Order: sequence, then structure tokens, then C-alpha cells
Amino acid sequence: AVAGPAMAAELPTIKWRLASSFPKSLDTIYGAAETMAKRVAEATGGKFQIQVFAAGELVPGPGVLDAVKDGTVEIGHSASYYFVGKDPTFAFDTALPFGLNSRQQTAWMMQGGGLQLLREFFKDYNIYNIPCGNTGVQMGGWYRKEIKTVKDFEGLKMRIGGFAGKVIAKLGAVPQQIPGGDIYPALEKGTIDAAEWVGPYDDEKLGFNKVAKFYYYPGWWEGGPQLSVYVNQKQWESLPKEYKTILEDACLYAHADMQAEYDAKNPLALKKLVATGTQLRPFSAEIMAASYKAAFELYEETAASNPKFKKIYDAWKKFRDDQILWFGVAESRYDNFLQQQRSGAKK
Amino acid sequence: AVAGPAMAAELPTIKWRLASSFPKSLDTIYGAAETMAKRVAEATGGKFQIQVFAAGELVPGPGVLDAVKDGTVEIGHSASYYFVGKDPTFAFDTALPFGLNSRQQTAWMMQGGGLQLLREFFKDYNIYNIPCGNTGVQMGGWYRKEIKTVKDFEGLKMRIGGFAGKVIAKLGAVPQQIPGGDIYPALEKGTIDAAEWVGPYDDEKLGFNKVAKFYYYPGWWEGGPQLSVYVNQKQWESLPKEYKTILEDACLYAHADMQAEYDAKNPLALKKLVATGTQLRPFSAEIMAASYKAAFELYEETAASNPKFKKIYDAWKKFRDDQILWFGVAESRYDNFLQQQRSGAKK
Repeated sequence: AVAGPAMAAELPTIKWRLASSFPKSLDTIYGAAETMAKRVAEATGGKFQIQVFAAGELVPGPGVLDAVKDGTVEIGHSASYYFVGKDPTFAFDTALPFGLNSRQQTAWMMQGGGLQLLREFFKDYNIYNIPCGNTGVQMGGWYRKEIKTVKDFEGLKMRIGGFAGKVIAKLGAVPQQIPGGDIYPALEKGTIDAAEWVGPYDDEKLGFNKVAKFYYYPGWWEGGPQLSVYVNQKQWESLPKEYKTILEDACLYAHADMQAEYDAKNPLALKKLVATGTQLRPFSAEIMAASYKAAFELYEETAASNPKFKKIYDAWKKFRDDQILWFGVAESRYDNFLQQQRSGAKK
Repeated sequence: AVAGPAMAAELPTIKWRLASSFPKSLDTIYGAAETMAKRVAEATGGKFQIQVFAAGELVPGPGVLDAVKDGTVEIGHSASYYFVGKDPTFAFDTALPFGLNSRQQTAWMMQGGGLQLLREFFKDYNIYNIPCGNTGVQMGGWYRKEIKTVKDFEGLKMRIGGFAGKVIAKLGAVPQQIPGGDIYPALEKGTIDAAEWVGPYDDEKLGFNKVAKFYYYPGWWEGGPQLSVYVNQKQWESLPKEYKTILEDACLYAHADMQAEYDAKNPLALKKLVATGTQLRPFSAEIMAASYKAAFELYEETAASNPKFKKIYDAWKKFRDDQILWFGVAESRYDNFLQQQRSGAKK
């Protein structure tokens, strides 16, 4: 007997709303959610639709975690370190000062036990988290005057948040929380002395070079900040297995694609900035070392009073130490040699 | 009127055979194809099945390109630089000495125009190529005696292939083509003086540390070698759009996952090697500089006689120069500082 055409066990039609923590003007970060949504739709013949809403359209940027937790939206895209006020443990899902670089963060998540630890943590927030994007090492921000020593941080009013703000407060600076759109006028008027945002591509678009001359690197507080997709746990469990895999794979596609986009765009933006007068400066060894010391003091203090933080911190630190050792061998020798050749090149 | 239950436009059931260029013993590289195949099956409820065959099971490792080209198999997983004998242009799909590092290669492919250029090139081989894995910077191999200057390469019989072999031949060495399984006895007997393989994780499994004492870094011929999935062009075009996206996303998932696995495993293997007496050595600045010069001479020579190579080389070199400039700012300053702190750390 020949089997008749099989009646398809049809997969459900699903429409989700995604709340992004980012404005459309951050096209590379915001765009990762759109890339992901587009690929999910293509992979399902349009049956699984995710509509992306920018920060403020459904909920304000900082409201994304609660919106997904409470089921106001099915899915969100955010940077977990925005929520260190709820629990500092969230930072491990994005970045901690002097933490993992972009590749190391992905390695920790996918093959180093990080994702398991963080999924356990996110369960308390009804969220299934999936990595979806990374910016790479960010820049150290814009300064109206040169910053040469730790002393220059004393009283410095700087737009910087989260753990990074706490670290520079230990050096005597005064961290300020200012939304992206308000940084330019604050810096122009001198209400603040310095501000950090992302990196050359995003910074150049906001025109910070016109109101602050000195551009420092690296942004040691963001060595490889990861963005994450948050799926409401109940919604995640309701998905057929096919859609779960399709969604995760689309997130990983967007994850690689976003880092690639920053890597492709940042060099050109940096060239433009330098060509128009921006003074590019490395943070001094003294500033880096003092910040490093302050950061790890802060982690030890936090771990002493927060068991959830301690559990992940202990595993993260071990992984991080091994990564730094390994990257210090072949990777750095390779990159550093090429940089020396490049700076010595005539053409 | 209420619409009746829709008859599903059922997606086809497809079974493909994948020929890998790798043995199962290279579990991280070989495993990327299995990871990809598993996710494709999950995303399609088992309708799109890809069975992975190790090198030699269907076709020998070096036969994968032709097998996909001729339609002997629908899909393959390989390292395109194996085929530089057919055309040196293939190297851009994997790695060239002193070329892009892992992240830069992905950036070039996804957002720097590399994938478009290479897909155009691969059309002549009936192949649709998709990035699927990277090892990161490999190691510079195992040497029975110390290599301090360019002179030490004179007459050195070394297991090394492709462009890298041509470069060290310019320094006076004698490159040897030896399959992975035959390296150990050749090195043990002294038939060869040196051999390169992959990195700590794979090298330690083959036990090279028992027959050669000196382990050099970096493998400047493989700064970020990418693995690729080859899909027969006709088979690719026959896929429904859903399966195309599912296959590409699964490749990108495996792409990130393979790099993560190497990053997680290499540090532990390197520690083990060093603990059991392996002498870890950086290539000297003299050797690096002479190799660099020889490599770019070779590219210029190749570009002068091969228009396909020249077309991609010109675009690749421009992208590469910008990447090195950019990574020399925030990324390197960040990584180098952490390495200094780590090596100065007491615990």
C-alpha cells in the first residue's frame, strides 16, 4: 500500500511583542532584535512573528525586565546590567569591570557553564535568557579635560552607571545617571565633565566630539558587554520544540552579526573622529591599576553579602583567570605583532 | 463564515549526507557539523535530516570539495585552505598567514563584504558556502630543538601545509605534508624536526609533548581559521526558504559554539602540557618579521598572476588593515592590561 499524503501536524501561528530597552537610534544594538525576529519569521514561513518595539513604545527601557517577568510582553531584549539595582548578580549576564572580553563571554556562556548558572538565576524572574549580541570592548568615554592620574578623577562629574559608577566613586568621581539623549547638552553646558556611551560608531553619531576633546580607552568597565533576549518562562515552555530551537539559533545568528557589525563600523568611525580633531588617549597605568583594585574590592564586598552573586562570581572568576592566561599566549602575541607591524607600516 | 482548519502546506522531508574533512578524533571541529545537523533536525521536527560522515567514510578528507561540487553528497564541512592547490583564493575562506583573527574573520564575512566575495568565487565550484566554526589563533607547533633565529629554520623538516609551507620554505625550511595520524611516529623517529597541528586541546590528545619538547606560539599562519559548510548549489536552490534560514542559523550557532568550545578547553590543556614539562616559547621578533615579509611577498606574487585572488585580496587587505588599527586601541589595551595584572597576581 502506498501511504497517502500525510496530514501535517501543523505548527501554531504565534504573534509576540518584543520590548527592547534600546532606542532605534542605537541601530546596531536595537537592530539585533530585528535581525533575530526576521530570521524567526523566515524560518517558520511567517508563522512565528515577533514584532519589535523600541524603548518607550510599550514600556520604558528600564521596564523591560519586569514587563517580561509579569507577562506584559512575551519577550524582551536588554542589557542585564541595567538591573544591578535589583540584584548585582545581573551584571554577569552582561559585563563587569575588568571582566571577560567579547569572545570570552560567549565561551563562558556556551561552553563554560555561564548560561546554566544564569538561567538558574533568571528563573526567579520568570525569564529564560538567551545571549543576543555583544559590542566588544567599549571606549572609556569623553572628557572635557585630560585625565592623567587618579587625582584627576576627584570630584569629576561623569555620566556612567552600574558597577562602573561605583568603582569610579571609589576613586573620588561623582557618577551621574543621564539618559543617552541628555548627555550632549549636559556635556556642552559643563553640567558634567565627562560621559561614556558606547564606542566610536555610536558616539560619533551623537556628536560628543563637538563638546569634549579627549576620548579615552579602553572602557575597562565593559570588556565584552553582552545583550540578552528575555523570554517569559511560561511563554517559552508553551513553544513547540521546533520554535525553541529556531528562536535560539536566530538569537545566536544575531549575536554573531551584531559583534560583526560593530567590528566593521567602529574602525571607520574612529578614523573620522581622529581626523576631525578628537584626541585619543589611553588611560594611564596608574588609573587602570587603581580601578582594577577598586573593582575587585567591590566584588569581594558584594560576594560577602549576596550568596547568589558569590555563587556565580566564584565560577566566573576561575573561568576568567584561565581565559586571561590563555589569551595571553597565542592570541595576544598574534594581535600585538600585527599592530606593531601596522603602526610601523609606511602605507 | 468561519474558516476550517487550514491544510498545512507541509514542508518536505529531506535526508542529506554530509561529508566532513575531519576525523572524529578532532571532536571539536568534527563536532561542529554534528551540532549543526542536530539543530537543523530539532528546528524541523526531524523532517530535515543531515547525517554526518567523518573523513574517509564516504570520501577522503581532501575529496569533500569535489564531492559537493559533483553532487556525490549534498553537503560538506571542510577548511577551504585545503584546496589552495586548486586555487590559492580558497585561503580567504579559512585563513592566510598574518591575516584576520577569529572575530575579525567573522566580521569580514558577515558585515565586511567577505561572504559576498567568497560566494561569488564558490559559484564556480557549484557551492553555496556558510561559515561554520573557527579555532582561534592556533599554536606554532612542536619542535625537537629550540628555534631562536631565522637561521634555525634552514633545512628544518616541518609538517606544515598550504600557504604556511610556502612561507617557511622562503625562510629555508622544508615543508612536509603528513596526515595527522602519522605525525607522532615521524616526530618520534626524527623523520621530521617539527610539526604543527592545532592548539593545546587537540595537540595534547595526540601526545606530541612526549616526542618534542618545545611548543612555540603563535601559529602566525592561522590567526583565525574558519571552517565552512559547503552546500551543493542545486541542492541549496531546491530548499524551501524556511530550510535555508534554518540551515544558515544552525551553522552560525555551531560557528559560535565551536570557538567557545576551543576557548573553554584550550587553557586547561595548556596548563596540563606546561605542568608535564613542555617548554612554551614565543617565536622571536626576528622570525615573526621575516615570516611576515615573506608572506606578503607571496600574496603580491599570487595577486599579480591570479585575478580572482587579486580581487578578494585587495578588499581583504583593506578590511584587515582597518581591523588591526581598531583592535590596537580598546581591545588590545584591555586584554594586555588584564594579562599584566594576571601575571603579576599572587594567587
